Amino acid sequence: MSRFAPAVAKLITELGRLPGIGGKTAQRLAFHLLSVPEPQALNLARAITEAREKVRMCSQCCNLTESDPCDICAASARDRTMVCVVENPRDVAAIERMREYNGLYHVLHGVLSPSEGIGPEKIRLQELIRRLQNHAEIEEVILAMNPSVEGEATALYLARLLKPSGLKTTRPAHGIPMGGDLEYADEITLSRAFSGRSRI
Amino acid sequence: MSRFAPAVAKLITELGRLPGIGGKTAQRLAFHLLSVPEPQALNLARAITEAREKVRMCSQCCNLTESDPCDICAASARDRTMVCVVENPRDVAAIERMREYNGLYHVLHGVLSPSEGIGPEKIRLQELIRRLQNHAEIEEVILAMNPSVEGEATALYLARLLKPSGLKTTRPAHGIPMGGDLEYADEITLSRAFSGRSRI
Repeated sequence: MSRFAPAVAKLITELGRLPGIGGKTAQRLAFHLLSVPEPQALNLARAITEAREKVRMCSQCCNLTESDPCDICAASARDRTMVCVVENPRDVAAIERMREYNGLYHVLHGVLSPSEGIGPEKIRLQELIRRLQNHAEIEEVILAMNPSVEGEATALYLARLLKPSGLKTTRPAHGIPMGGDLEYADEITLSRAFSGRSRI
Repeated sequence: MSRFAPAVAKLITELGRLPGIGGKTAQRLAFHLLSVPEPQALNLARAITEAREKVRMCSQCCNLTESDPCDICAASARDRTMVCVVENPRDVAAIERMREYNGLYHVLHGVLSPSEGIGPEKIRLQELIRRLQNHAEIEEVILAMNPSVEGEATALYLARLLKPSGLKTTRPAHGIPMGGDLEYADEITLSRAFSGRSRI
């Protein structure tokens, strides 16, 4: 029993499909889009259409890009002996912001999750294996999945898969975040911090 | 220093312009729109464009509509002696959900807010005054603005403006919400509830 004009109701429905956007928020966003100057609303529509038109996957690292190979894979200054495997393109952006890692990436677009029916064939694992076979210059694979249950499981799965190849496989350290308080760290983080302790 | 493809960065920027959508959420939404099947993403783009094309203001009540006059103004079954003045189209939808009010509406599209430079000429007040002058059948004006400082001020302003006309002006009751707890009601709500008390 919608009391909105059909085009408004449709817009609310489509906005409500976005993750984390509930019914009330969708309404608020819809009326915002109807109240701002028309070009601003149409800019969003155009940005969606253009992004879907232009953005594709890099044939080497599976990151989202407009050019193939992507800027990172094409950059001659990058260290081609290292590949950092991440869950999604946002992770690439986060690591790039650090400005310290100079190797290449591989974006899996997901993690293994048997409970959600996501097996090795649903993520970009095959592409990674093929890439490691074809590029003898790669020496180290950094498994930088998130420290969630699925992320850990995916890292373990990959580590086991890569063992016969003799490649160095590493995982970023887990521990107490900088500026964090021991008192407020959860048990698992604390346990990781202790088992991963190093001499000073 | 964006590490996203230009079309992705543009999409994130446009999503970030939406109210309540911060940088991280905009990123999450952008990558969601890039990962869902293409038609779903394009549906949202189309819904925005179509809503802006089709939706206009009803020439009588200023509500958003695709037909002019809107369905409510055009309905012969509605009580034309009452006009309920609200801040925005979502309020119309909320009151319609109640299924008890059968009069007409007038949507102001805002409230008076001197601090934000919103004077009487910035909201649909002139349209309301003209409508009340031209429609002698209107007997009661319900001032249903939100009980915020600006809403109250707008209601008072309108009540004073309408006084010479002899129209009955009313305001919905404020008080303790049903199911609410006296203990947790704020002082202003409680004071309103007491001053507005009625015999049982």
